Amino acid sequence: MNFCSHCGQPVRFAIPEGDDRPRFLCDACGTIHYQNPRIVAGTLPVSGSRVLLCRRAISPRKGYWTLPAGFMENGETTVEAAARETREEAMAEVALQPLYTMINLPHIDQVFMIFRAELAGDFGPGPESLEVALFEEHEIPWDALAFPTIERTLHHFFADRRQGDFVLHVSDITPEDRERYFGSA
Amino acid sequence: MNFCSHCGQPVRFAIPEGDDRPRFLCDACGTIHYQNPRIVAGTLPVSGSRVLLCRRAISPRKGYWTLPAGFMENGETTVEAAARETREEAMAEVALQPLYTMINLPHIDQVFMIFRAELAGDFGPGPESLEVALFEEHEIPWDALAFPTIERTLHHFFADRRQGDFVLHVSDITPEDRERYFGSA
Repeated sequence: MNFCSHCGQPVRFAIPEGDDRPRFLCDACGTIHYQNPRIVAGTLPVSGSRVLLCRRAISPRKGYWTLPAGFMENGETTVEAAARETREEAMAEVALQPLYTMINLPHIDQVFMIFRAELAGDFGPGPESLEVALFEEHEIPWDALAFPTIERTLHHFFADRRQGDFVLHVSDITPEDRERYFGSA
Repeated sequence: MNFCSHCGQPVRFAIPEGDDRPRFLCDACGTIHYQNPRIVAGTLPVSGSRVLLCRRAISPRKGYWTLPAGFMENGETTVEAAARETREEAMAEVALQPLYTMINLPHIDQVFMIFRAELAGDFGPGPESLEVALFEEHEIPWDALAFPTIERTLHHFFADRRQGDFVLHVSDITPEDRERYFGSA
């Protein structure tokens, strides 16, 4: 951020009076520009014993497999965002089930939320997917998953399914987790 | 938003190519300015049979009672945000328990999240609170609560406590809910 989005004058990055962290400040019009984490919402669609994954047609991680998920938009709910992303990326309608994973990614200012879901009918690749397919547990492409959030959500899912009990999992992905996952690349 | 925060030129509000909803666009430098919902995180601190509430020292709803909660900041997790807001508004340390309510407010682009928590030690009014106090269920100031999210979270809590089983409650507050709560004011 270089300029005030309200009045167009240059901003500076400093701690406002009475605050305890730096913000972008406009001395011309007095606006304080707050920046906050974004929510990535999606689903883990299930059909019988298989789960649906999408192979990404866009960067980052083009060609790698993911659950359908993306940035929540203004004016929608988390549930609506998860259903919309599933429709867009996998051309699939789903019956939403409870919130399943909420994973904080503080180093990139995101909160990742996956709802379990029951696949209802057909599916196919939307514009952001190269292909969409159903996988049994032993078929999951563990070495070709797009993000550590996806790997962790799938690990929880198969473990909970064996136990016969699905519970909400809240956790964090640290910079160390991320480095371990992506390697030095 | 009137000006591009990257280059300072005027923006226009239109649907970008390949997108399906309007964004603030800069024709000068090509930046698309996405805007996304914000998370409000907080706690429901419990001490024995009583719950902690804060009376707001700031607008909106100055003078009304609330749970300690506020906007999640970049660089922190939802759990850290909830604990920080509790420290700031109620000068209280808490042991965080599971996520308890997640309430979507799509008309104001917010997602409200409350974690149950066990109060650990003393408390008092922070700069944004006039007073902080513990309430038995029959003492809750139902007619002087600040927001419908707070009323709903407390209703869930006392009902679940009677059942002896706390579960995550995900719901939405609609413009109609809001109007019913605040009246025509």
